[in-house]
Amino acid sequence: MSGSGRLRVVGLGPGPADWRTPEADAALARASDVVGYAPYLERLALGPRQRRHVSDNREELLRARHALALAASGADVALVSGGDPGVFAMAAALIEAAEAGEPAWRTPDIEVLPGVGAMQAAAARLGAPLGHDFCAISLSDNLKPWEVVARRLGCAAEGDFVIALYNPASKARPKRIHDAFALLRSLKSGATPVAFARAVGRADERLTLTDLCAADPGLADMATLVVIGSSQTRWVAREGLRPWMLTPRCYGAGR
Amino acid sequence: MSGSGRLRVVGLGPGPADWRTPEADAALARASDVVGYAPYLERLALGPRQRRHVSDNREELLRARHALALAASGADVALVSGGDPGVFAMAAALIEAAEAGEPAWRTPDIEVLPGVGAMQAAAARLGAPLGHDFCAISLSDNLKPWEVVARRLGCAAEGDFVIALYNPASKARPKRIHDAFALLRSLKSGATPVAFARAVGRADERLTLTDLCAADPGLADMATLVVIGSSQTRWVAREGLRPWMLTPRCYGAGR
Repeated sequence: MSGSGRLRVVGLGPGPADWRTPEADAALARASDVVGYAPYLERLALGPRQRRHVSDNREELLRARHALALAASGADVALVSGGDPGVFAMAAALIEAAEAGEPAWRTPDIEVLPGVGAMQAAAARLGAPLGHDFCAISLSDNLKPWEVVARRLGCAAEGDFVIALYNPASKARPKRIHDAFALLRSLKSGATPVAFARAVGRADERLTLTDLCAADPGLADMATLVVIGSSQTRWVAREGLRPWMLTPRCYGAGR
Repeated sequence: MSGSGRLRVVGLGPGPADWRTPEADAALARASDVVGYAPYLERLALGPRQRRHVSDNREELLRARHALALAASGADVALVSGGDPGVFAMAAALIEAAEAGEPAWRTPDIEVLPGVGAMQAAAARLGAPLGHDFCAISLSDNLKPWEVVARRLGCAAEGDFVIALYNPASKARPKRIHDAFALLRSLKSGATPVAFARAVGRADERLTLTDLCAADPGLADMATLVVIGSSQTRWVAREGLRPWMLTPRCYGAGR
């Protein structure tokens, strides 16, 4: 253990390089070792002397442990994360791994470098759906009981928050997004604006604008962020263009 | 009206240039006119031929109207916003102004460019407080009745969300943050981790780590983001370093 290693959890943003911060680029350029899920590493132009450590998407803790062990042995490690690493992503996995691991894993120079999140990218494309109070809920029930998700959806509806749903679906649990929509339909107006923002900033970007009544939850895959409005959220029409999704800054003021 | 104008709502991020995206920098470099709150414009190195349009912080709608009128007359406008423009910031003001304004204001080429948000920057410094479901609530009651804020705080506590409080205090309404803490103390454990993250990324950055029982709401000013944990949020000790604030990815699993 040299103790001289460093580890940066690097937020790559939603995809395009021009949504990646200079800080993130500098950490990637300097790293001796870059650790991450394969599709994220494929996006990066790394040098021939930079070691790549590729792992499967579901192996977040293993990936974090590997990054910590490398840093503890003196490497300059970039542990890459899509979007912002702090939101349903690698920062929590890293700290959990450090907490559970060897004491030497908590001593290297470790920092989280923020990035543009999927939620912000989707909001930018849609207009301003997050212009007022909102919440972010992951529908993954790998990591929490469905009862917790359902309770939170209920409280989010009761509090009239805009709701951003992360990880809305996967092959292993395709029904959860349908359950979530069924629950929200029982609690909110069918006319509530809803958007499915898929792969924002990437070549296969697709935006679907609809409402809670008409929405097809089957549109959501793991690359989709689903945005469900509050009672105040509305569409703002533009001639010949996609309408904007707006949650105004004032509550209950009408137009 | 030339109709050939363009308008970009540009997220500057929390402060330092290395948290600003290349997309934002390119829009700023290209703009003929840069519109914004004075302290944001002061951060930027603009060219001698770029026109600056400075306004007061409370004049968001006026600023947006001015930007739209410039774009409608053919200018290439950057309307700058701190952090991410989509979260309690200029994107909503811009769309509200476009909706209420002349038809020509909805036709220019208008885009929102996302940025690193204050919430993400604070989370990165603190560790991983937003690693699980969270909500963001603005305490400003200029724009909504306090009853709406109080209801949302109650629902956020009931749903056991991590809570990020934006705009926690101002000279005009110094008591709201005290009211919010009093309410949350009646609903959540006094041992809940709390952080005050002030001016993250800037020279006067200050982090204060505490708990709900001991927290001094008077620490919060308008440059502060307040993060209040869920029942799962905990501190992870590091020898000789500030502890990490962690909301683990799993709910209710213990350590």
